[in-house]
Amino acid sequence: MANWAIGVDLGGTKIEIASVERSGEMLNRIRMPTDVDGGPTAIEKQIQEGIEELCKKNNGDPVGVGVGIAAQIESEQGVILNAPNLHWKDVPFQENLKTLTKLPVTITNDVRAAAWGEWLHGSGQGAKEMICMFVGTGIGGGIVCNGQMLGGCSNTAGEVGHMPIRHPGLPCSCGSSGCLESIAGGWAIGKRAQNAIRSDRSAGMQMLKLADGQLDHISAKTVSQAYELKDPLAKYLIQETAEALIDGCTALVNAFNPCRFILGGGVIEGLPIFVDLIEEGVKKKALPAATSKLSFSKAATGNDAGVLGAAALAMNNQ
Amino acid sequence: MANWAIGVDLGGTKIEIASVERSGEMLNRIRMPTDVDGGPTAIEKQIQEGIEELCKKNNGDPVGVGVGIAAQIESEQGVILNAPNLHWKDVPFQENLKTLTKLPVTITNDVRAAAWGEWLHGSGQGAKEMICMFVGTGIGGGIVCNGQMLGGCSNTAGEVGHMPIRHPGLPCSCGSSGCLESIAGGWAIGKRAQNAIRSDRSAGMQMLKLADGQLDHISAKTVSQAYELKDPLAKYLIQETAEALIDGCTALVNAFNPCRFILGGGVIEGLPIFVDLIEEGVKKKALPAATSKLSFSKAATGNDAGVLGAAALAMNNQ
Repeated sequence: MANWAIGVDLGGTKIEIASVERSGEMLNRIRMPTDVDGGPTAIEKQIQEGIEELCKKNNGDPVGVGVGIAAQIESEQGVILNAPNLHWKDVPFQENLKTLTKLPVTITNDVRAAAWGEWLHGSGQGAKEMICMFVGTGIGGGIVCNGQMLGGCSNTAGEVGHMPIRHPGLPCSCGSSGCLESIAGGWAIGKRAQNAIRSDRSAGMQMLKLADGQLDHISAKTVSQAYELKDPLAKYLIQETAEALIDGCTALVNAFNPCRFILGGGVIEGLPIFVDLIEEGVKKKALPAATSKLSFSKAATGNDAGVLGAAALAMNNQ
Repeated sequence: MANWAIGVDLGGTKIEIASVERSGEMLNRIRMPTDVDGGPTAIEKQIQEGIEELCKKNNGDPVGVGVGIAAQIESEQGVILNAPNLHWKDVPFQENLKTLTKLPVTITNDVRAAAWGEWLHGSGQGAKEMICMFVGTGIGGGIVCNGQMLGGCSNTAGEVGHMPIRHPGLPCSCGSSGCLESIAGGWAIGKRAQNAIRSDRSAGMQMLKLADGQLDHISAKTVSQAYELKDPLAKYLIQETAEALIDGCTALVNAFNPCRFILGGGVIEGLPIFVDLIEEGVKKKALPAATSKLSFSKAATGNDAGVLGAAALAMNNQ
């Protein structure tokens, strides 16, 4: 049997396909823009062609194909119930790809695939209990319990961005309010900065300058850049973000008692000091017994976590 | 091999010992006041004698002994690291009981034992993913992931009372602030009622009457009684409690995606309408996909959960 698998990271703007050895070593990779307008048929064809190209390069067939996708997925049959970025609903994607590629195919949520990547090949290696939180535009994660990735009852485990931590709190993307994501998600950091500057323009001069004077171009990235320049408003916003992340991580640490807590995603990559701030805060706020064996790390596989994890999943399911 | 085990619920005021069949049927039970002043030696002797009595009644030896105790426990050797109710620190309790009884002994946290009881013989039967939250004086719980009770990295998993849900929030028993328990734990409900009445005595007339005019005798139970009598302040306090519980349960539902959510403990038993209030609130606040297969129930084994669960644990470990 082959000792490599195909990992696919299917996003709203690009598709990444890689051939990955069992050890996590990447053999080859292909990147292409996602043909969102072409719908499932076009995208399935893009992926099929990418897989064929990698099979040719590797001179053979992989053990299977794993796909990570930002979607809510029915896990038994691999049906995409809802993928907002792709405008898909109820697409039997796993079945379709199986028919096209004649290979075993496994579909999972993109964030859970990335958590798999971190667990098997990144900062989570060897952890029997792990929480991986990705703080990007949104916030999501993956949870390993008793040495197994947690799927949950309806395959949605790991939605750690929607833990209520503020009351009544700000409106969240999920329709609720006060969620962790409503303060610490990338979209929320940008929005909070814009609102702060709208009510006190003088405090936002540095950020406005960084955004070429365009208030609505101010994003989480702008806030991170201004923080590095010691801008007071940016410092305030980052502290508020860190406090929210400390509360969310503390909730998870007390409830789950993980050994390893991994932080990744654009907001963390943009300002890695978050890892230290969160570790310090959680170790102060959580129950001492719950943190006695806990270590924090930044995600190690970076942008590769998605394809690595999807390939690992394919390997695991054989 | 015998088809029954001994379950022990060791509390700060009483010890309960029961012989329990694999099916969960209780054969015999003994209750005695805990000899706290006698220290570990006296209590170990109390338990030994109770076990001998049950063995005589059942005409033979059990497969093993399980003990649930309100303590932080080192799981490998069953050492009690800290049991505040008993004033114990670093007691090799599992080893001591093994030597005395010449039976296999397993020690676990009392709340986790009760969660085991609910999982195997109560409202959690058959659930692959379950959260059991006990709202008593304090708040704790047990979590079943992938069909296994979660111990966690340092055996403290299930401390769901110490999820931060309010900011900055009220001081909590754990030394932090804003925890779920700091609003919804029995001690906190009583304290919030007392504080409210202290600042507006007229609003508290009904509760004061129920507590024979003694402000400092007002407890969670008083608030529940006044709520049943449609007292407006009690109604407000119960709503605030329910909101906090909804936030805490929503956090767990979104992060873990359980199939079954079980609520028990004195506060819930005292006002069972909490189960409906929480179910309604969580189903509104959590992600729809995370609640699609979720059901809520009141704990079914009541005060028996502790001994049933401890016996089940002994059975499970053979």
